[in-house]
Amino acid sequence: MGREKLIDVGVGRVPADLVIRGGRLVNVHTAQIYPADVAIKGDRIAFVGDVGHTIGEKTKIINAKGKYLTPGLIDTHQHSYESQLNMTEYARALLLHGTTTVTEAFYGMGMIAGIEGIRFCLDELKRTPLRVLFLVPVLAYLQNRELGLPATPNAPTPSDLREMLSWPDCYGLEEPPCLPIVEKDPVFMDLFQAAVDKGKVITGHASELRGQELNAYIAAGASSDHESTSPEEALEKTRLGMRISAREGSGASDVSQVIKAITESKVDSRYFTFCGDIVEIPRLVRTGHLDYNIRLAIGSGVNPIAAVQIASVNAAEYLKAERDIGSIVPGKIGDILLVHDLPKFAVCTVIANGKIVVHDGDFIAKLERPQYPSSMYSTVRLKRPVVPRDFAIKSSKKKRKAKVRVIGVTEGSLITEERKVVLRVKDGYVEPDIEQDVLKIVMVDRYDRSEMIGKGFIQGLGIKEGAIGSTYNALYENVVVVGTNDCDMAFAVNEIARKGGGFIAVQEGSVRACLELPLFGLLSDESLEIALAKVEKLHNAVRDLGCSLKSPFHTLSFSCVAGEIGAVKLSHQGLYDVNRRRVIDTVV
Amino acid sequence: MGREKLIDVGVGRVPADLVIRGGRLVNVHTAQIYPADVAIKGDRIAFVGDVGHTIGEKTKIINAKGKYLTPGLIDTHQHSYESQLNMTEYARALLLHGTTTVTEAFYGMGMIAGIEGIRFCLDELKRTPLRVLFLVPVLAYLQNRELGLPATPNAPTPSDLREMLSWPDCYGLEEPPCLPIVEKDPVFMDLFQAAVDKGKVITGHASELRGQELNAYIAAGASSDHESTSPEEALEKTRLGMRISAREGSGASDVSQVIKAITESKVDSRYFTFCGDIVEIPRLVRTGHLDYNIRLAIGSGVNPIAAVQIASVNAAEYLKAERDIGSIVPGKIGDILLVHDLPKFAVCTVIANGKIVVHDGDFIAKLERPQYPSSMYSTVRLKRPVVPRDFAIKSSKKKRKAKVRVIGVTEGSLITEERKVVLRVKDGYVEPDIEQDVLKIVMVDRYDRSEMIGKGFIQGLGIKEGAIGSTYNALYENVVVVGTNDCDMAFAVNEIARKGGGFIAVQEGSVRACLELPLFGLLSDESLEIALAKVEKLHNAVRDLGCSLKSPFHTLSFSCVAGEIGAVKLSHQGLYDVNRRRVIDTVV
Repeated sequence: MGREKLIDVGVGRVPADLVIRGGRLVNVHTAQIYPADVAIKGDRIAFVGDVGHTIGEKTKIINAKGKYLTPGLIDTHQHSYESQLNMTEYARALLLHGTTTVTEAFYGMGMIAGIEGIRFCLDELKRTPLRVLFLVPVLAYLQNRELGLPATPNAPTPSDLREMLSWPDCYGLEEPPCLPIVEKDPVFMDLFQAAVDKGKVITGHASELRGQELNAYIAAGASSDHESTSPEEALEKTRLGMRISAREGSGASDVSQVIKAITESKVDSRYFTFCGDIVEIPRLVRTGHLDYNIRLAIGSGVNPIAAVQIASVNAAEYLKAERDIGSIVPGKIGDILLVHDLPKFAVCTVIANGKIVVHDGDFIAKLERPQYPSSMYSTVRLKRPVVPRDFAIKSSKKKRKAKVRVIGVTEGSLITEERKVVLRVKDGYVEPDIEQDVLKIVMVDRYDRSEMIGKGFIQGLGIKEGAIGSTYNALYENVVVVGTNDCDMAFAVNEIARKGGGFIAVQEGSVRACLELPLFGLLSDESLEIALAKVEKLHNAVRDLGCSLKSPFHTLSFSCVAGEIGAVKLSHQGLYDVNRRRVIDTVV
Repeated sequence: MGREKLIDVGVGRVPADLVIRGGRLVNVHTAQIYPADVAIKGDRIAFVGDVGHTIGEKTKIINAKGKYLTPGLIDTHQHSYESQLNMTEYARALLLHGTTTVTEAFYGMGMIAGIEGIRFCLDELKRTPLRVLFLVPVLAYLQNRELGLPATPNAPTPSDLREMLSWPDCYGLEEPPCLPIVEKDPVFMDLFQAAVDKGKVITGHASELRGQELNAYIAAGASSDHESTSPEEALEKTRLGMRISAREGSGASDVSQVIKAITESKVDSRYFTFCGDIVEIPRLVRTGHLDYNIRLAIGSGVNPIAAVQIASVNAAEYLKAERDIGSIVPGKIGDILLVHDLPKFAVCTVIANGKIVVHDGDFIAKLERPQYPSSMYSTVRLKRPVVPRDFAIKSSKKKRKAKVRVIGVTEGSLITEERKVVLRVKDGYVEPDIEQDVLKIVMVDRYDRSEMIGKGFIQGLGIKEGAIGSTYNALYENVVVVGTNDCDMAFAVNEIARKGGGFIAVQEGSVRACLELPLFGLLSDESLEIALAKVEKLHNAVRDLGCSLKSPFHTLSFSCVAGEIGAVKLSHQGLYDVNRRRVIDTVV
């Protein structure tokens, strides 16, 4: 619909489709709250003020008495695939909490299915009321190349990256890391320059980056960062012109620290935005999304209006999407929340694209999952089914004990450290030791490419029986299983492969619980409710096996090689020393 | 230069070209002031912080001890041609006061010389250190079409407007008025949609616009306004999402009123910018440009850091130029001011594009005016020289007195009103009356098109002897002369035409003073100093003739038809009733 209709509604020549009356507007432009009504025509806002002259016979009227009107919330850094939901159900989960726009690069899907998988997911998401601002998944290309590990067979090529950057619905680049910039990798330099020339954003990944390298990264074009964990880090980055995306999700809880830059260092809040980064299903449903970031920020002393600005107009401006979204003014898309109790930010009603999507907490919009093409299924292909013997770890020395390197994990951290423990040797093979909480961990190639299996030991998961496994990690999304015995582990690998991917808990040769992820081996093809029930059952099952970690599959994922994070991780070739960039022996 | 060099300087591999040490940085991102140094490579900032590692043997060092570092200032609405300076000298005048970027559409030049004249001026300005963010001069197309008056022969066509919008150095549209939008003029609807689709700004012209029409105008895409004169007007517009450009110039003094929206209504200052709109030479030199807006704003209670934000980063973000300008951070263009005494905002040194342009108040950059093509000269072409008799105003009635309509002007206002006075008739012709301050005013066509001469009377200029004339007004930039007698008036017209345009004061058949404007009949081709001397001499001469108006040639200009401003104005066909859109008789 052209803007002619908006003009006609504005001056009273044509009635509005929808008006919201009686609420108090949180105006993110002036930072004021006052009573104001809103008239919508089609998907856009036509008038804000006294809407009497815009009401016709067929105009739908929402009574917002006692409610605050805020713009729909905008996430500036999030990976949908790490929720394990298909795009349609992902949209539903976010909309229920008032998020009406996400930035998204489809990084995981890109690793598995390249540019075609990315486009399918983008189009699926675009058919939902959740707006997606597409970013180029630079990491789907990079993967672990910086460590000398080749990318997945279908990974996007440099020319794919350039093609995606030129898509009309593309808003920029997603988190290219600093190292290739400082080292002037031509693929990255070219991509940065192209993004800058097109006036698009380069959302950064500046974990622990400070001083000289931070300056260089920003000078090259990186314009934001979501990795700040302290107010000092946020202060240095905002002073150098970066936008800070304060993160709160399953992977990290940074909001309460980062916003001290605002509340204590008195930094202008206009360059702050919010993100979830990684948000798992139970958290999405039980805790919330950006609505939770807002509650946390307000609870930590941020002015409620500023918190809403951070979640809306700041993000829209950062992403250069403010023509369409970010505030409740004439001409913008009708993405509006009715919120009960501003500081508690309880989202009652969600209007997206001018249509009511969530009404008094109920999702009322009709969503239909597409028929997923068969190419998105059956992407977990083993060369052959594994057998327990495949996982045997030989000790070359003829002794009854062996000193081995193990991957040490800690609750709440993505960093893994190298630890050394002494394990029993039986018939020449090193055995796990439940007493010491040292389990075997294996990675099996899922691309039908080889029989190479990476094997090692891991400490810190607490599993006492059976095995758990997944097809979700930053090294190829390979099949990774941790367990107390080779039989359950082999069973878990074969079961996951048979299901086309997923999270699994097995015990004594049977499946205790499973979240099937048949789409790319990464996403559920079921509803939010079913996926939630399955993942909660699975978490209970994992707990029954003895593991008390909050996000066991997330921890498992980051036990595998994931860029420059951590010291020792698992690879498809065995233990990998991240700092020295090479495979190392398990047995010392 | 690519960004590789910035990276190399940032990490200390290559020395900076220029460093600024010892100053206090006004950080417009965090709204903080603290000591920080800046390193520049080529035209861009490479590093901000402790620059020790960037200094090499050939690095130039500026000592900023005791000074504040602020970003270069950005004007969001200004007409260069209304300064009467050529683009090179215009750049010099602005840079001397710390303005490093202007938005500019070359509206006047476009009226005379169409798209080619516009492009020439744009290119001339681009060869200076003053950055120009080009906007499409919608008014050069529209002129007074809305009143039923055709545009100048060379006026840009709708397809010229679209072409200019697609220039890579184009940032949007300049002040299309509301009326064609509300009336859905297809040329404007098309242009608005194209600007929106390209993600470019539509700087608005929303003089006295409120309520329904304001909503409609904004919904159609108008994103800012520079016409607010009261805090209430600014408040309504910012609440609806408009950016407010607070104006202070020769045409209007709005800053002290408009910024009450910030100081009294407590509106967030982030959506405010500054502009001059019309700034004449003496004002530019003696009073200043945006540095004066800043002084005024601070003097009226705006926080000094907010005032600097308003003049820099707010404007850059509004215009979507923040990738390049608006703050002192790595990667941006080195547009930096050294300011002595922040509240008084005394600009000492100006660095533009990484080079020192103004040093301790002296303009040290080398500027060269281009050889202006002959087509830019001789644009004031009369069908034939005029004679005094051409200006005779006949009274049809055989009486000794006649009641006539006169254009009534008031100091400080662009509005002109219809007044009625009784004048003497001699030999059948109505005579001016110096006692009543009623002078004759004539408009002579400058396009060699016809002998049609518009004639009328005007009250309020105070001239007691001779005549003054100009080729600067919104109706064709025709020759307009006001005087006490037909002889001096005819002399003035012919002299102006002979000079190719200008401002003139004549008395008893000789030129008392003149500012020649031979380029398009609008711009001086001389230096700032010479133009200043001439205009000051001219103003003195006009005062000697009895006129005490502050800006006599500006007042004269707005005595002619200029869109919907005012009730009765002069046209090339005689007196024009703006409201009824038709020529009216002088003699009642």
